[in-house]
Amino acid sequence: MKRAYPILLTLGFALVFLAAATAQAKDPLPSWNAGKTKQAIIQFVEDVTKQGGPNYVPPAERIATFDNDGTLWVEYPMYTQVLFAFDRVKELAPQHPEWKTKQPFKALLEGDMKTVGASGMKGLMEIVIASHTGMTAAEFDQEVSDWLATTKQSKFNRLYTELTYQPQLELLAYLRANGFKTFIVSGGGMAFMRPISEKVYGIPPEQVVGSSVVAEFQVKDGHPVLVRQPKINFINDKAGKPVGIYEHIGRRPILAFGNSDSDMQMIEYTMAGDGLRLGLFVHHTDAEREYAYDRKSHVGTLDKALDQADAKGWIIVDMKNDWKTILPSK
Amino acid sequence: MKRAYPILLTLGFALVFLAAATAQAKDPLPSWNAGKTKQAIIQFVEDVTKQGGPNYVPPAERIATFDNDGTLWVEYPMYTQVLFAFDRVKELAPQHPEWKTKQPFKALLEGDMKTVGASGMKGLMEIVIASHTGMTAAEFDQEVSDWLATTKQSKFNRLYTELTYQPQLELLAYLRANGFKTFIVSGGGMAFMRPISEKVYGIPPEQVVGSSVVAEFQVKDGHPVLVRQPKINFINDKAGKPVGIYEHIGRRPILAFGNSDSDMQMIEYTMAGDGLRLGLFVHHTDAEREYAYDRKSHVGTLDKALDQADAKGWIIVDMKNDWKTILPSK
Repeated sequence: MKRAYPILLTLGFALVFLAAATAQAKDPLPSWNAGKTKQAIIQFVEDVTKQGGPNYVPPAERIATFDNDGTLWVEYPMYTQVLFAFDRVKELAPQHPEWKTKQPFKALLEGDMKTVGASGMKGLMEIVIASHTGMTAAEFDQEVSDWLATTKQSKFNRLYTELTYQPQLELLAYLRANGFKTFIVSGGGMAFMRPISEKVYGIPPEQVVGSSVVAEFQVKDGHPVLVRQPKINFINDKAGKPVGIYEHIGRRPILAFGNSDSDMQMIEYTMAGDGLRLGLFVHHTDAEREYAYDRKSHVGTLDKALDQADAKGWIIVDMKNDWKTILPSK
Repeated sequence: MKRAYPILLTLGFALVFLAAATAQAKDPLPSWNAGKTKQAIIQFVEDVTKQGGPNYVPPAERIATFDNDGTLWVEYPMYTQVLFAFDRVKELAPQHPEWKTKQPFKALLEGDMKTVGASGMKGLMEIVIASHTGMTAAEFDQEVSDWLATTKQSKFNRLYTELTYQPQLELLAYLRANGFKTFIVSGGGMAFMRPISEKVYGIPPEQVVGSSVVAEFQVKDGHPVLVRQPKINFINDKAGKPVGIYEHIGRRPILAFGNSDSDMQMIEYTMAGDGLRLGLFVHHTDAEREYAYDRKSHVGTLDKALDQADAKGWIIVDMKNDWKTILPSK
């Protein structure tokens, strides 16, 4: 054994140096173009992870929250969950003859989307309640999984779960590799994202915060189940996002990423903590590779946040210029 | 290098065997007496972690939920959070002259605990609301931390955070070492447990599920804060526990541990899943080292669960016989 020790040591050091060199050489965010935005993200991560540095944050406090629609996956021309709700209503229609004469269901079944749109938030909520409640938690989970496994988005002709943003998948992985815990904090329904969050984003269900309906514990035929009730429990949007974060995470994030004015409160809350913080918005500027929309859009309206970004130190990520690729390769 | 390889290999194998031998030899639950209960726990963990075995559960699904009061720490003669609420009311009394004539505050301030008790759940809720709301989330967090850092329980003359059960601390660590994610699922307030959960149990705030008041996002003097409102949001008790699990975790646990009839629904819900499951109740049987109470107790009532345990395959942990030590050494 005597002779082996120096060799072991040499080999050990060589491996350590090799690992360090590889880590430095390898770009953790290959789908982000070089520039101010990418540099700001990497600088932030290096600063908060640098032990002994002035901006060091212990791993337990490295909480990063991401909006989902328009931030992690495509939301245009309509939120995926709303399309799911429309499809479910059509599927359930035979069991609801009364919908033939009741708005907004009548319009939806007739394909009159203008009237559906005119029914506003109230109409949309009726559609959501009709399509998202009355079943057990496990049944709903299955319905969502089945729909997402089979339904394709028209522009890209791909499953919705394939319309995630490659640069964001890299960012999530990069943050986790640096000791961050990544969360989804979405206006969408928790139960709609949870069946696919782990597979698609590497984010387990318990790290998905979102809107919800009231659930009730019942014993059905001797079997304990949770039944989704026709009543909104919580809307995790706008000023609801920091509340959802308090309720589900119990710590203030140090990084928050959104794409619309609905994410402003989450990002304000994040930035208001002590120490180094990062707040970012995706700006959809790429009509060719994805979509271009902002101030006047019917989904993901980005207006006030654009005006306030400079003054508040928020980073506006320009999809067209900052992202080398948009979607994962097929 | 040529000569070093066999030595490296030999050394490598030696280390692997050494690690395996140490793991087998070292009792992961030294504060649990040998017996049926300890054996059932270890067998369960070995079964669900055995790759290729018939009962294997992937790490992501190894969710274990623990009640807090009476399951992880002492709850007798009164829940810690209620004592905190009583102390807070006394501290706040100078700012509330109206309490001098208003029940149950009048009785509490006069030390007339019989009248406080007679005010029932309604009176208790008034005391909780008065002591737990009106401040920011950060302020409440600080109040809880300060109180827990300074207030001692009378029988043991120790801080409440030191009145955790040593066997349970070992079990939590054993489960985590075997890829489990451990959660608190308590009837108590989330915001009361979160400031200390990581330090005391190794459970981060985001893995604490409990009761809550409504929180509101406000901007105070340009600073975004969450203000705790005088309104109950959710009671995470009894049939509320599986609902809280659905809301916060989104998966069914495979192991659940409680100590009272209030934990029955959580344990029923856990046991009703497919595959191997474990449901356990602490039975407080040790008047000498801790307390002895069950069917007729005013806290942690354990009655129906005792009757149903055998038929339902729940394990009743006999504190006196199953636990070698109760509290961590000073």
